[in-house]
Amino acid sequence: MSKLTDVPKRILIGRARRSEKLGETLLPKRVALPVFASDPLSSVAYAPGEVLIVLSIAGASAYHFSPWIATAIIVLMFTVVASYRQNVRAYPSGGGDYEVATTNLGRRAGLTVASALLVDYVLTVAVSISSGVENLGSAVPFVVENKTTVAVAVILLLTVMNLRGVRESGKLFAVPTYCFVVGVLALILWGVIRTVLLDDDLKAPTADYEIHTEHTEGLAGFALAFLLLRAFSSGCAALTGVEAISNGVPAFRKPKSKNAATTLALMGVIAVTMFGGIIALALASDVKMAERPSTEILVNGEPAGSDYAQDPVISQVGAAVFGDGSLPFVFLAAATALVLFLAANTSYNGFPLLGSILAQDRYLPRQLHTRGDRLAFSNGIVLLAGAAAILVVVYEADSTRLIQLYIVGVFVSFTLSQTGMVRHWNRLLRTETRPPERRRMLRSRAINTFGAFFTGIVLIVVLITKFSHGAWVSLVGMGLFYALMTAIRRHYDLVAEELETDEEGEPPVRPSRVHSIVLVSKIHKPTLRALAYARLMRSDSLEAVTISVDPSETKELRAEWDRRGIDVPLKILESPYREVTRPVIDYVKRMRKEHPRDVVSVYIPEYVVGHWYEQLLHNQSALRLKGRLLFTSGVMVTSVPWQLESSEIARRRARRRADWHAPGAVRRGPVPGQGKRDEQ
Amino acid sequence: MSKLTDVPKRILIGRARRSEKLGETLLPKRVALPVFASDPLSSVAYAPGEVLIVLSIAGASAYHFSPWIATAIIVLMFTVVASYRQNVRAYPSGGGDYEVATTNLGRRAGLTVASALLVDYVLTVAVSISSGVENLGSAVPFVVENKTTVAVAVILLLTVMNLRGVRESGKLFAVPTYCFVVGVLALILWGVIRTVLLDDDLKAPTADYEIHTEHTEGLAGFALAFLLLRAFSSGCAALTGVEAISNGVPAFRKPKSKNAATTLALMGVIAVTMFGGIIALALASDVKMAERPSTEILVNGEPAGSDYAQDPVISQVGAAVFGDGSLPFVFLAAATALVLFLAANTSYNGFPLLGSILAQDRYLPRQLHTRGDRLAFSNGIVLLAGAAAILVVVYEADSTRLIQLYIVGVFVSFTLSQTGMVRHWNRLLRTETRPPERRRMLRSRAINTFGAFFTGIVLIVVLITKFSHGAWVSLVGMGLFYALMTAIRRHYDLVAEELETDEEGEPPVRPSRVHSIVLVSKIHKPTLRALAYARLMRSDSLEAVTISVDPSETKELRAEWDRRGIDVPLKILESPYREVTRPVIDYVKRMRKEHPRDVVSVYIPEYVVGHWYEQLLHNQSALRLKGRLLFTSGVMVTSVPWQLESSEIARRRARRRADWHAPGAVRRGPVPGQGKRDEQ
Repeated sequence: MSKLTDVPKRILIGRARRSEKLGETLLPKRVALPVFASDPLSSVAYAPGEVLIVLSIAGASAYHFSPWIATAIIVLMFTVVASYRQNVRAYPSGGGDYEVATTNLGRRAGLTVASALLVDYVLTVAVSISSGVENLGSAVPFVVENKTTVAVAVILLLTVMNLRGVRESGKLFAVPTYCFVVGVLALILWGVIRTVLLDDDLKAPTADYEIHTEHTEGLAGFALAFLLLRAFSSGCAALTGVEAISNGVPAFRKPKSKNAATTLALMGVIAVTMFGGIIALALASDVKMAERPSTEILVNGEPAGSDYAQDPVISQVGAAVFGDGSLPFVFLAAATALVLFLAANTSYNGFPLLGSILAQDRYLPRQLHTRGDRLAFSNGIVLLAGAAAILVVVYEADSTRLIQLYIVGVFVSFTLSQTGMVRHWNRLLRTETRPPERRRMLRSRAINTFGAFFTGIVLIVVLITKFSHGAWVSLVGMGLFYALMTAIRRHYDLVAEELETDEEGEPPVRPSRVHSIVLVSKIHKPTLRALAYARLMRSDSLEAVTISVDPSETKELRAEWDRRGIDVPLKILESPYREVTRPVIDYVKRMRKEHPRDVVSVYIPEYVVGHWYEQLLHNQSALRLKGRLLFTSGVMVTSVPWQLESSEIARRRARRRADWHAPGAVRRGPVPGQGKRDEQ
Repeated sequence: MSKLTDVPKRILIGRARRSEKLGETLLPKRVALPVFASDPLSSVAYAPGEVLIVLSIAGASAYHFSPWIATAIIVLMFTVVASYRQNVRAYPSGGGDYEVATTNLGRRAGLTVASALLVDYVLTVAVSISSGVENLGSAVPFVVENKTTVAVAVILLLTVMNLRGVRESGKLFAVPTYCFVVGVLALILWGVIRTVLLDDDLKAPTADYEIHTEHTEGLAGFALAFLLLRAFSSGCAALTGVEAISNGVPAFRKPKSKNAATTLALMGVIAVTMFGGIIALALASDVKMAERPSTEILVNGEPAGSDYAQDPVISQVGAAVFGDGSLPFVFLAAATALVLFLAANTSYNGFPLLGSILAQDRYLPRQLHTRGDRLAFSNGIVLLAGAAAILVVVYEADSTRLIQLYIVGVFVSFTLSQTGMVRHWNRLLRTETRPPERRRMLRSRAINTFGAFFTGIVLIVVLITKFSHGAWVSLVGMGLFYALMTAIRRHYDLVAEELETDEEGEPPVRPSRVHSIVLVSKIHKPTLRALAYARLMRSDSLEAVTISVDPSETKELRAEWDRRGIDVPLKILESPYREVTRPVIDYVKRMRKEHPRDVVSVYIPEYVVGHWYEQLLHNQSALRLKGRLLFTSGVMVTSVPWQLESSEIARRRARRRADWHAPGAVRRGPVPGQGKRDEQ
C-alpha cells in the first residue's frame, strides 16, 4: 500500500485496538455508581419540587403534608432498591426488566415492559434536559428566558456527540455526579448546621410570597386524599432510572451481582438522603412553589405575572442556605444542570442497548443487534432525539408538565418485573430442597412480592391521578411501540416459516448443472479478471455474453476477442433499444426454460470507486441488472470487483466507520469469550 | 407462475410489444413537418414583435425600417435552410450539429456545440412557454395577470407528462401545428384582402397609442446602425429550432435525407411567409410595441401605467384583421399558445436525445445512453425543467427579456456546424474525381460557406448587441455545461487508462485456485440453496462460515448441521462485538495472506422482498458485508437470491418500469437491426 495510506492506517489500527480494550474495562463500584446512578440521583433535582407544587393547590398550608409524602416515597424507594437487589442476583446477564418479564410472564409482558422503557428513555431526555435548563436558569437568567430553544440545543448537542460515537467513559460521569452529590450533601449539612446550631432562619427567595389558588382555604376528605396521592405520584419521579443498574450488571467487576447490589443500596441511601434533606430544607426556608406561578404566586398581594420564572426547589434552597448568587450556589446550580444533562445522556446509551436486545428477539430490525452497526444505532439515536425534541417543544421545556407523562412507564416496568421475580422464585422453590437456599429464596420472594404489590398500587395511583394530566400520552406512545414491534416480529416469523426447511432439507428442485455467463462490455482488466475467476470455478458451461448496443463497438470487441484468442465463447445479444438489462434477463430466462433443473451463474465485473459521484458514473447498469436478476429464480449473481485507485479513499472511510464506538458500550460491559478475538 | 400474475403479465407483454411497434413507425413528411417544425414555426409568434420593440426605442417612426430587417431575416432564414439541406444529405445519422462539428472540427468544437444546444433547450422551454402564456393572455386576461405562475404550472405539466413517459405521437403535434399554420395564413390572406381589395384600413388595438422614449426624435449614424442590428438579432429568434430536423433524419421515411431536405424547404417557406406577413400586417395596422410599455406607451398622452399588458404582435394583428374577441381571433390565440407549448415540449424530447448521444461519447454518464433507462432520462428532464423554471421566475415569464439570452446558442451551433460542413466538403473534394459529383459538392460547399459566413456575422452581431442585455447569461450556462462534460470525460478516460490491459492481457497475478465460503446464519431454504449452488461450482475448497453472535444459537446451528449430516465443513467465527462484517473481512484477508495467488469466493444467501420497508428488515448486514468485501482484492461475491412470496410485487414493478417509453422516441426514429429482436 502506498506510503500515504500508511499513517492513517496505523492510526486506525491503533484506534481499533483501543476500542477493543475499552470493552474489557470493567467498572469498579466507585465508577459504576456515577455511570448508572446519574439518572436516579439527578431526579432529586425536580422530584421534591413536584411534591410541593401539587400540594400548593391546597394552599401553602398543605405543605405540612410533605414530610409524610416524602416518607412514603422513601419507603417506596427502599422497597424498589431492595427488590432490584434480588433482580441483579437472579439475572446477572443484563437483560433487566425486559428479560425478567419475558422469561417469567411471557412475550406480551416482556414487550409491554420494553415499550414502557422505550417511552421512558424518550421522557428521561425530555424531562432531565428541561429540568437541567431550569436549574441552569436559576443562575443564568438568559437561559430560562429562552428555555425551549436552549433545551432543544442541548438535545442537538447530545445527539451529535452520540452520533459521532463519543465514548461513554467512567470519568465523564464520575466528576459531575460526585460534584452534585457532594454539593447537595454539603447544602443539607450546612443548612442543618445553620438552622439547628446557629439557629438563624433560612429564607428562600420566595419565602415572602403567598400562594393563592381556588382551594387555598384548604381541602378535605376525598379531594384532599386525591391531592395527596397526586403529590405522592409526582414525587415518585425520584425513582426513575433505578432499574438502570439491573441492565448493567455485566459491566461490573467480579463478583458482578454482589457489586451491583451494593451499588444499588449505596445509590438508594444517597438518593433518599438528598430527597429527604431537600424537602426538609424547603419547608424550613419557606419555599413557595405553585402549579401556575404567574397567577397563583402573589408578590405583595399581586399575581407574579407571566414574566415570573419559578426556580426549582433545589436552587431556591441553595439560595437560602448559601445565599443567592454566592459561589457555592452557582457551583451547585451548575453541577445540578450538568448531572441532569448526563442523566439525559444515559438514555442515549440505554436506548440502543435495549434496542439490540429487542432486535435479538426479532422485535426490531436485526441489524440493531450487532454492536458495531453505526447506521442502526444512529437511526435509534435520531429517533430518540426527535421524539424528545418534539415533547420539549410541545411542552415548552416545562419539566413540571413533562413529569406528568413520565412516571407511568417506570412503574409499568417495576410492577411487571417484580411480579416476574415472584414467579421466578416460585419456580425455583418447586425444585429447591436445601433449607438455607430455600430460606434465602423465600426471603427474596417476600421482598419481590412486597415490591410488586407496592409498585402495583403506585402504578394504579399514578394512572388514576395523572391520566388526564398527560399520562395518556405515554400510554399512547407505549401502544405505538408495542404495535410496531409485534408487527416486525410477525413479519420475521412469517418469513422464517416460509424459509422453514422440510426435514430431508434440500430445496424442492435439486439443481443438476450450472451454466456460467460472464458479462463483457469491453476487454479490460476487470473483464479479464472476471473471466479468469469464472474459469477457476469450473462450471459445466462457460460463455462470455456482451450486449450489442452499438454494432461497430461490438464488431471491434469480437475482433479483439478473436485476436487475443480468449478460449471462452463470446455470445452477442442484440439490444435494439440500447437496453442492457432486458436482453440479459431474457437470455437467462431462456436458458432456464431450456434446462429447468440447471442453475445460471452470472459474473459481473464491477469497478470500485471512492466517491458517490464517481459511483454515479459507473456500475449503474450493473446495479440495475443485479437488482433485476435477483428476481429471477435459479440464478446466482457474482460481482467480481476491480478496485480503482480512488477506491482507497472509500476503503479508509469504511474502516473508520468500523472503528466507531457504539453508545452504551460501557454500561453494556465486555463480551463473553472476546478473548478468542485476540488469538485470531 | 400463479394465476394471479398471469393477467398483469399478459397486459405487460402486450404493452411491451406495442412499445416495440412504436419504434418502427417512420414519419411521412406530412407528420414529420409538425413534429420537427413546431419549434421554428412557433417562433414567428414572438420574433416579429421583438423587431418592432427594439425599433420602438427610436420611436414609432423607426418602424419603417422593419421591412428591411424582415428581408434580412428572411434571407438569413433561406441561407440557413439551404445550408441544413446539405447537412441532412451529408449526415443522415441524426447526429446533427454536434456530430458535424465533432467529426470535422474536433472534440472541442463539438462540445461547444453540445453545450450551446443544451442551453438552447432550456431557453426554448422558457421562451416558448412565456410567449405561449402571453398569447393565451391576449384572449384570457386572467392568464396574463398571473403570468409567472401559469408559466411555471405549464412547465410542471409538461414535466410530469414526460416523466410519466407520454408517447410523443405525430398526431399530438400535427393537429395544433396545422391549426396554427392555417390560422396565420388565413390571417395574412384575409388581412391582405381587406387592405388591398376592400381597402378598409386595419386598426390594431394599440393603433392610437403613441410611443415616447428618450430617442423618440429619432436616432442617426452609429446609434441608429447599432439599433437596427439589435432589431435584426432580436428578429433572428425566428430561426431557432431550424436545426431540429437535422437531428431527426432517421425518423423519416425512405429516402430519408431527401424527405428531410424537402421538409426543411417546406418549413422554411412557411416560416418566411408567416414572418413577413405578420410584420407587414403589423405595419399596416399601426401596431405599437415598446420595450417598457408601462412608461413608453402613451394612451392619450398619458403613460400606460404598470397595469398595461402589451399583447404580442400576432394577437394584435389578429384583433385588427378578425376583430378583437371574434371567434377566429380566439381560435388563433389558442392555436398559437398550443403550438408554443408543443415547441417547449420538443425540448423535452430533444434534450435526452442529445444527452444519449453525448453519453455515447462519454461526456455524460453512460446510463443516459441506454434508451430504456427511465431513471437517467428522468434526471435529464428534471434538470431541464428546473433550469427553465428558474429562468421563467427570474425573468417573470417576460419573453422579450428571455429572448435576449436565446439566440446566442443557436448561432454558435449554426456557425460551427456550417464551418464543419465546409471542412467536410473540402475533405471529400480532395478524393472525389467524377466531375458531376464534384460539381454537386462545390455547390454544397459554396452554400455552406456562405451559411457559415453569414451566421458567423450574425453571431458576432448578436454578441455585440445583446451581451449586456443577457447574452452573457447563456454564455455562462454554456461554460458550465462545457466544464462539466469535460470533467466527466476526463474521469472516464482516466479510468479507461487504468483498466487498459497490457497486451498478453491477463491480470498481473494469474490466480491458481479458488476457495469458496458460504455464509450461514441459520439452516433454512436460502442457506441450503446457497450451499447446493456453491457445491455445483466445484471450487478447490468449500466451507460454510457462520459468525457466532450468540453462543447458544451457534451451538444449536452446529448441532443441526451435524444432525443433517451436511457434507460441508462448518467454520465458526467468534464475533465478541456481535459484528458481522469485520470477522468475515478479517477471515477472508487471512485466507488471502496465506494463499496470495488464490481467489476467495464468498456466497451470500439473500432474501428478495417486495417492499422497501421489508428490505429494511433483511439483508442489511449482507448488504454492508458485500459493500466491504468489494474493497478487498482477490474476492468474488456471489449473492444467491431466495425470492420470498412478497417479491412478486417488486418483480412486477420492475417489469412495469421496463415498459416505459423514453421521450424523444419518435424523433429519434427506429433502430437499425431491431428486426433481430423479434426473431429472438
